[in-house]
Amino acid sequence: MSEPFTLAVDAMGGDQAPDMVVEGLAIAAERHPGARFLLVGDEARLQPLVADCKRAQACCLVRHAPDVIANDAKVSAALRMRGASMRVAIDAVAAGHAQGVVSAGNTGALLALSKFVIKTLPGIDRPAMAAIMPSARGDVVMLDLGANLACDPRNLVEFALLGDMFARTVLGLTAPTIGLLNVGSEELKGHDQIRDAADILRRSHIACQFHGFVEGHDIAAGTTDIVITDGFTGNVALKTGEGALKLVNDLLRQIFASSLSSKLGYFLARSGLDQMKVWLDPRRYNGAVFLGLNGVVVKSHGGTDAEGFAHAVDVAVDMVTHRFNERLREGIGRLGGVLAQSGAGKPGLTPAISR
Amino acid sequence: MSEPFTLAVDAMGGDQAPDMVVEGLAIAAERHPGARFLLVGDEARLQPLVADCKRAQACCLVRHAPDVIANDAKVSAALRMRGASMRVAIDAVAAGHAQGVVSAGNTGALLALSKFVIKTLPGIDRPAMAAIMPSARGDVVMLDLGANLACDPRNLVEFALLGDMFARTVLGLTAPTIGLLNVGSEELKGHDQIRDAADILRRSHIACQFHGFVEGHDIAAGTTDIVITDGFTGNVALKTGEGALKLVNDLLRQIFASSLSSKLGYFLARSGLDQMKVWLDPRRYNGAVFLGLNGVVVKSHGGTDAEGFAHAVDVAVDMVTHRFNERLREGIGRLGGVLAQSGAGKPGLTPAISR
Repeated sequence: MSEPFTLAVDAMGGDQAPDMVVEGLAIAAERHPGARFLLVGDEARLQPLVADCKRAQACCLVRHAPDVIANDAKVSAALRMRGASMRVAIDAVAAGHAQGVVSAGNTGALLALSKFVIKTLPGIDRPAMAAIMPSARGDVVMLDLGANLACDPRNLVEFALLGDMFARTVLGLTAPTIGLLNVGSEELKGHDQIRDAADILRRSHIACQFHGFVEGHDIAAGTTDIVITDGFTGNVALKTGEGALKLVNDLLRQIFASSLSSKLGYFLARSGLDQMKVWLDPRRYNGAVFLGLNGVVVKSHGGTDAEGFAHAVDVAVDMVTHRFNERLREGIGRLGGVLAQSGAGKPGLTPAISR
Repeated sequence: MSEPFTLAVDAMGGDQAPDMVVEGLAIAAERHPGARFLLVGDEARLQPLVADCKRAQACCLVRHAPDVIANDAKVSAALRMRGASMRVAIDAVAAGHAQGVVSAGNTGALLALSKFVIKTLPGIDRPAMAAIMPSARGDVVMLDLGANLACDPRNLVEFALLGDMFARTVLGLTAPTIGLLNVGSEELKGHDQIRDAADILRRSHIACQFHGFVEGHDIAAGTTDIVITDGFTGNVALKTGEGALKLVNDLLRQIFASSLSSKLGYFLARSGLDQMKVWLDPRRYNGAVFLGLNGVVVKSHGGTDAEGFAHAVDVAVDMVTHRFNERLREGIGRLGGVLAQSGAGKPGLTPAISR
């Protein structure tokens, strides 16, 4: 997209902020010439960083925010900090000064502030946190990753519809397959919420995309394009997979450094090994999106570096340039609720989204 | 242990049963000269298999059982099949003809039949499924892996005590550290059940071993020796980790076969790579134990091979030779309930186990 657009960036979120953030924006700017960044945070610290970096200078506008939301801050406290960098960045989206926001700060605060300031899209009960993960058969979208620790069938079905829209618009898939994460693939496995959600999906307009239950190993196998689960399980699964990959990565590093022969071995197999390392690099999958909000909100891992932060910016750019939210809004408006039809929509609840 | 002992083995459980089972016992027999196996299943199929294998012949006694519990059988149906190989094997433990049972069959049926026939130890509310997993800092015990999909604080605390006993007796650790799996390490993270369980553990006699909350990536990092979670999350986490390891393993195989140079590279780094492969081999971690039952019950993965089944037998042998259940029974008798002290013991519930 050649049309310019602006992303608000919380410059103070993340373990190595703000340096990492400014460096990350410089990397992202090269990939997205149309992007402008509203860099929100402590002006006195940000101005010299931006001045030192030609590429950042060309795309960043600094907006001062005196406060920072700590990583261990309670949501209730975060909601009161009107001068926090995260808050000012989100306010910029609500005011129309930016099309999306990226932050590597406190996840709970980012979700709560986004819901409070930007609001949830009409028809969406609860926004979900989604991310792209590597699998043997290509990218997999998984949600929820921690925005909603406990979920009812309605939430899970909504996540399936949000994930479907995300996979279509951002990944460009035409009929992405959907799996519901469970402890077994048989219909009678799992607890009531999951079985009820599966029943609704089987009777919905995306029934032909619904693969049924999938298990933990199906995520990396890429059995389905989309994996749906509650936020507690999704968060644990995401981090468990990342941990397992890190374990192997560390072992391989040790092995290839252990002797002259091993070092030579690495050198000979280098092209494939380096490709795998790049492909599985967690930084490449950095950037979780909150789906279902009235604006683009991307959460970067707090411990990431500039390269990882740039990937989170990529995700926000993808969401904006693919007009994800506009399409989602159209989808909600065009069709009535799957849940209402299925009887899962309780009176008083807004109708479910649909395509 | 030189003293001979007998394990009852469900010869008909598992995708490649009964051949895989008999071969697995032959492998295990070499490692455990004192072990005798009561091989339960279709006599007409088992006798020739045993007759064909000298090592199996020396340690196996075939006991006929006409039926097999299918993998998709409902628990209610399984409970009625008195002639099933799994049932007859469990009956042998209850009758004192064997000190433990190993099965690669239907997990739900194995748990239900074990609870029904062998019974839960007095003082234990619900048995848990535990397994050993590889980590950067050595073996980690994780439970529950699927026996209890939803857990209250009392269950989680009980799992911590069962895991502690397992790590002490079977892994030989003196003061194993315990982590409670959550979506963050901060005290205010997660849902009520986990926070309440953490509160109880912090006030218990194993408080000094309690590390607090751990996250998904802490499993492979080996942050704690024991990871406690509900059966739903544990099952998903276990399989997600296995899936991630399989993904890397498959990629490495492709890389090292992709060119002559890569093949030579593998050859040069071979000793380390092969060591890693053996160390992370899921078969080496095959064999989940049901802790809290009045006998040793080990569940092998249904899709494993003879080598994997032999590892499940190893686990059962370890449990029997380390007299896990006797020690657990002593522990329960010797001390009163952590839960009763903490106020979590509801009236009518049996007192909690303790050391």
